[in-house]
Amino acid sequence: MMTPSWIIQKKRDGKELKKEELSEFIRGISSGAVADYQASAFLMAVFFQSMTLNETVALTEAMLESGDRYCLSHIPGCKVDKHSTGGVGDKVSLILAPLAAACGLRVPMMSGRGLGHTGGTIDKLESIPGFNVHLSQQRFCEILAQVGCAMTSQTEKIAPADKKLYALRDVTGTVECIPLITASILSKKLAEGTDALVLDVKIGTGAFMKTREQARRLARTIIQVAKKMKLPCRAVLSSMNQPLGYSVGHTIEVCESIEVLKNEKRDDLNSIDLKELTLHLCAQMLYLGRVTRTLNEGRKLAQDRLHDGSAWKVFQELVKAQNGDLASIQSPEKLKLATQKVTWKAKRRGYIAKMNAEEIGKLLIELGGGRKKASDPVDPSVGFIFHKKLGVPIQTGEPLVTVYAQPHTDLALLENQFHPLVEISGTRKMVPKLVFEQLS
Amino acid sequence: MMTPSWIIQKKRDGKELKKEELSEFIRGISSGAVADYQASAFLMAVFFQSMTLNETVALTEAMLESGDRYCLSHIPGCKVDKHSTGGVGDKVSLILAPLAAACGLRVPMMSGRGLGHTGGTIDKLESIPGFNVHLSQQRFCEILAQVGCAMTSQTEKIAPADKKLYALRDVTGTVECIPLITASILSKKLAEGTDALVLDVKIGTGAFMKTREQARRLARTIIQVAKKMKLPCRAVLSSMNQPLGYSVGHTIEVCESIEVLKNEKRDDLNSIDLKELTLHLCAQMLYLGRVTRTLNEGRKLAQDRLHDGSAWKVFQELVKAQNGDLASIQSPEKLKLATQKVTWKAKRRGYIAKMNAEEIGKLLIELGGGRKKASDPVDPSVGFIFHKKLGVPIQTGEPLVTVYAQPHTDLALLENQFHPLVEISGTRKMVPKLVFEQLS
Repeated sequence: MMTPSWIIQKKRDGKELKKEELSEFIRGISSGAVADYQASAFLMAVFFQSMTLNETVALTEAMLESGDRYCLSHIPGCKVDKHSTGGVGDKVSLILAPLAAACGLRVPMMSGRGLGHTGGTIDKLESIPGFNVHLSQQRFCEILAQVGCAMTSQTEKIAPADKKLYALRDVTGTVECIPLITASILSKKLAEGTDALVLDVKIGTGAFMKTREQARRLARTIIQVAKKMKLPCRAVLSSMNQPLGYSVGHTIEVCESIEVLKNEKRDDLNSIDLKELTLHLCAQMLYLGRVTRTLNEGRKLAQDRLHDGSAWKVFQELVKAQNGDLASIQSPEKLKLATQKVTWKAKRRGYIAKMNAEEIGKLLIELGGGRKKASDPVDPSVGFIFHKKLGVPIQTGEPLVTVYAQPHTDLALLENQFHPLVEISGTRKMVPKLVFEQLS
Repeated sequence: MMTPSWIIQKKRDGKELKKEELSEFIRGISSGAVADYQASAFLMAVFFQSMTLNETVALTEAMLESGDRYCLSHIPGCKVDKHSTGGVGDKVSLILAPLAAACGLRVPMMSGRGLGHTGGTIDKLESIPGFNVHLSQQRFCEILAQVGCAMTSQTEKIAPADKKLYALRDVTGTVECIPLITASILSKKLAEGTDALVLDVKIGTGAFMKTREQARRLARTIIQVAKKMKLPCRAVLSSMNQPLGYSVGHTIEVCESIEVLKNEKRDDLNSIDLKELTLHLCAQMLYLGRVTRTLNEGRKLAQDRLHDGSAWKVFQELVKAQNGDLASIQSPEKLKLATQKVTWKAKRRGYIAKMNAEEIGKLLIELGGGRKKASDPVDPSVGFIFHKKLGVPIQTGEPLVTVYAQPHTDLALLENQFHPLVEISGTRKMVPKLVFEQLS
């Protein structure tokens, strides 16, 4: 029998682990033969020593094999899922899943919870009263067939080893690691039974990948491993240099997503980047799933289905099918926000030049809207509304952000932490492109 | 409040941690605010990024302050302790503590359990029926005053943070790390209240430090940090290129120690290196504790007290005071050994050229005589008796080692693993020196 600490040491010392060693170690994580504290030491060793392509494939397989694998072949239509590497204010999935379904795809979406400073789709969905994110395999398939998309969290039976490692990485400083990210994403996506995958790899101040080179390496690794495992895959590298859309926080982000789905335009707040990225990713999915022959046709179809209300209709059906409260999403002003509401104002005039989205994500954790420890609960009612996006002019004293916090929170302290995160410059600077490139 | 994963990340990224950050993290380990899996990820990050001298002092202080600190100033005489970095077959403490006491020192010895492939003094003592290794502070002081030495394990109250980290390191591949070893040793030794410390830093195939340079760096770090914390300290670098003495395993090692204490010479087995190193270390202790003015005088005094039976007398008093069964140590053949006894024989003739002591330590773990996980029990009755030491001639078919194992153990399998660990060469090779150098 393998001794866990020797496997850890072998990785620590930079040697390549054999397929059997990795699969036994991962089985041990599921069975308890490998303790959590051994798993986290292993993760940190992988952080420093990385993994070869063979190791990454073996890790992905071992994590996939740690649980069930859904078979969706009895459901007609092409199943395509999207995965984002995580950002701040990234609520794309909430709009994209019903939109792609409205365009004719099947979207079997198994999502995660917040990791590090980023939010998670499952946490966001749970801020809709009654919304059930724990679907059985049978119910998942039924909703997928009937509504066109289904959104669920990993059950205990899906890649249980990944579930454990994902939670551990979040609280042990081992999130930003290409082989671990790759295996985590692909084991889950292969287990949910999707036919193809579109990746949204984030780059910038709010992403785990800070540089384009890192992001490209991650995208290439995922595409390579996916190909070895017979999963067609395309990737988009997109900007995460400011929160996506105008909101950060669970309930507030649901509200913004509903506005986009309903085609409601607000004069005071700006969701343009959110909508644009959603359409771009939808085009990738439609092309990969062969609904359209070109990306341009895909984009046009997505735009039409968003504007004609089809996506909003699918979203309502989805919420209903997953036991969410329809009245709440039809009148999202009913969703409860935290009661301490304060607006922080610009201290000087100029242009919004930089936003440290990662630190903004961490401030949300300070408000209670994220996790310091895997077992922490998340408060969906807290968050931020950004009145200004990168590149726009602002006057001294104009609203920069509105904060929703619990009554006991010391907002004066947080405001001091906040201001350095948004840089106001005398001259207008170039705003980074929203989509940098595509890989396949 | 500190978020544990950010401290881990700061260390991971190679930045120097502040004294307050380290002390808060260590307090969190004691209180549970920092989970075990976070502690082990931190340990692995320290393994890769190491620590500055300031960080190591701060870590030592934080671990010391996590618990009680004994005051021994009311006990007359100079208190000097010895610490070994751990080896295979290293039972020196069992002989040295009573010997140094017989020479006039007070030896307050707080020891650990087995770590990695090495054995621990506390585990060895526990193989004496009834021997109580869990002394209260009061009882520890009483025995120290009355017998001249006392041997106990860390109570929950002594450097509890170290106790937790020590157990974690053992099973997460983070043992061989100079700042962690330094803080672990010194926090415990400062807490037990000793006036001065002699270090035995092992080098070789069975040591955590494989090279003389590494060992020297460890010794220097410990001496530097000890000085900053007002603890006089000397170090000896000694060879761990073969098991020390002839035995490996808990009960068997107790038997060998008793033979040395009783001045029993065996024709068939060889404890010369064990005895020699014990005398050498005793001389260092006597010199550091100002019992003798020179090391040579110290050595002479130690030799006399071993040969005149004083050390054996103190050992019996110690065992009695700590509720151990006197009859068992007076007739150690009564101590129970595992019932499957097999002798493995040399497959060729020549000279014993090399012994992989670390792998021999791991074989002991395979027999059940060591830990794979912190919570594993240890079987004291299993072990090895080596019939030949480095440098001696051997004939084909002559006994190499006798194994004591539980009936269910597959010894044929283990024998195949064993033979490559002992290299028999046609020509006589130089045996490494037992003591390489001294530092102060």
